[in-house]
Amino acid sequence: MSFVPCTTAIYSFSKNHQPVRTVQSGETFVIETYDCFQNQITSSETPFDSIDWNHINPATGPIYIEGAEPGDILAVKIEQIRLKGQGVMAVGPGLGVLGDRIPQFEAKMIPVEENRAIFDEHLSIPLNPMIGVIGVAPSGEDVSCGTPGPHGGNMDTKLITTGATVYFPVFVKGALFALGDLHAAMGDGEIGVSGIEIPGEVTVTVRVMKGYSLNHPLLQNDDGIATIVSAKTLDEAVKQSVEEMVDLLLPHTPLTLNHLTMVLSAAGQTQISQVVDPLVTARFFVPRFVLEAYGIRLFED
Amino acid sequence: MSFVPCTTAIYSFSKNHQPVRTVQSGETFVIETYDCFQNQITSSETPFDSIDWNHINPATGPIYIEGAEPGDILAVKIEQIRLKGQGVMAVGPGLGVLGDRIPQFEAKMIPVEENRAIFDEHLSIPLNPMIGVIGVAPSGEDVSCGTPGPHGGNMDTKLITTGATVYFPVFVKGALFALGDLHAAMGDGEIGVSGIEIPGEVTVTVRVMKGYSLNHPLLQNDDGIATIVSAKTLDEAVKQSVEEMVDLLLPHTPLTLNHLTMVLSAAGQTQISQVVDPLVTARFFVPRFVLEAYGIRLFED
Ligand SMILES: [Ca+2]
Ligand SMILES: [Ca+2]
Ligand SMILES: [Ca+2]
Ligand SMILES: [Ca+2]
Ligand SMILES: [Ca+2]
Repeated sequence: MSFVPCTTAIYSFSKNHQPVRTVQSGETFVIETYDCFQNQITSSETPFDSIDWNHINPATGPIYIEGAEPGDILAVKIEQIRLKGQGVMAVGPGLGVLGDRIPQFEAKMIPVEENRAIFDEHLSIPLNPMIGVIGVAPSGEDVSCGTPGPHGGNMDTKLITTGATVYFPVFVKGALFALGDLHAAMGDGEIGVSGIEIPGEVTVTVRVMKGYSLNHPLLQNDDGIATIVSAKTLDEAVKQSVEEMVDLLLPHTPLTLNHLTMVLSAAGQTQISQVVDPLVTARFFVPRFVLEAYGIRLFED
Repeated sequence: MSFVPCTTAIYSFSKNHQPVRTVQSGETFVIETYDCFQNQITSSETPFDSIDWNHINPATGPIYIEGAEPGDILAVKIEQIRLKGQGVMAVGPGLGVLGDRIPQFEAKMIPVEENRAIFDEHLSIPLNPMIGVIGVAPSGEDVSCGTPGPHGGNMDTKLITTGATVYFPVFVKGALFALGDLHAAMGDGEIGVSGIEIPGEVTVTVRVMKGYSLNHPLLQNDDGIATIVSAKTLDEAVKQSVEEMVDLLLPHTPLTLNHLTMVLSAAGQTQISQVVDPLVTARFFVPRFVLEAYGIRLFED
């Protein structure tokens, strides 16, 4: 199985980056990742000024997916996430929801055991391993790996975890896929700007899908599907994520827009991914029983 | 057990309303409720113009709680929710996230069986019975029962269901408590403006708590606690709900603000209640294991 080392990291999603590897549609491979600080914080004593802040949010890649063309969809199945080493969290003035009250930068190492992260002698936190940064190159200007968008990127979405498939719109030939920024645990919102950041390895299977298109990343897991939209405000991200879902589902159902709206009001879920990156990210989740009731299959296999 | 009939409905929370009943702190009683349309929609053929739109979102009450004084907290334990009769949903132009695309008003009756709501011949929706409107009288101007706020009101929060306790700041003598707007099912966001609206009966136990104060409603259930904040934008509601939680927890933990922020970033959950009432409502949820790890008890019994 192909192994892509973390030393091939990028700090932006860009159509101009040279691919570090080429893989076939259908191929399963392993991507090694730094933590979001490029493993620069090794203790709570690591001086703030010693950190190279230009090397934050590395994503490993980009990986050229053979056959991917603009207008296609790239399906990425998350087969496995292996966390490696210890976790780290950081807070600082101006960062996150409480940034205006945080007096000074502080980092804290968080040992990660099999199922729990050890925060202190009182508290251990159950793990929910997930991928913070994952996406493809945009067609236009480069996008920092710290920013989310229609290409994916820093979506910090808890649902992007083992067993899920994320569908991305393809904007450039080869898609130029990359991922990084694993979290051992994170809450919806990521209100302090970091999850429990940790290096690791991710096994993915990629597949190019022709004849479908998307405006934003779409996620599918055992429980259902979610549109994932990033915008300047949560209100805007929520509205767009609902509209994207309606436009995806409506052609596949016998329902009028009125009745589909009722179904989604009763059973659809507006959820928050993160509120702290330069843009915020919301998702609209539709449970599987709704899809099954109407025999909805968005993509034929 | 005292029974308050739905015919004693109010359409605003107001310090000027005459109480319809007086109960003691510690008392358990039953409140009957209309649906949010005051039971005026009886079929999908009910003409829009036949509905009295000034009688929307009735709440049964107000109920005077003996001993409640401004500055106290009123704890309301939801003991049981019994749904009665059939459900109804409605959509219309200008209403909800998709209101700009909805061509015309439409109502649909939704039969509610023991565990499912029957949407059509394809789809039945599992029930999550909940209370949409619940609160106390504000100190200032009257607030329509269609609007949420620090006094509670139209919070449309899924967590307000059997087994939960909701804590309200008390603004006026006797609290002047009321509730209504039951839903047989609703998704977070309530994107179409209605859940599966249905009449019913709610059994509650109320308790006046002295020596504590709150700025916004707080909810406690078996899984943890949530601050519930309504504001003009989701971004503002999320920020305020996190700040309210931090201010509640910080004095009860050995943690610095920096470390509490990390804990809440890793394990706290920003969630959306509704995005369609005149104000929107968000909540910040902290799981019970965090409270137990630090022995946090916000209120001594
Ligand atoms: Ca991130
Ligand atoms: Ca982030
Ligand atoms: Ca991160
Ligand atoms: Ca409501
Ligand atoms: Ca309602």
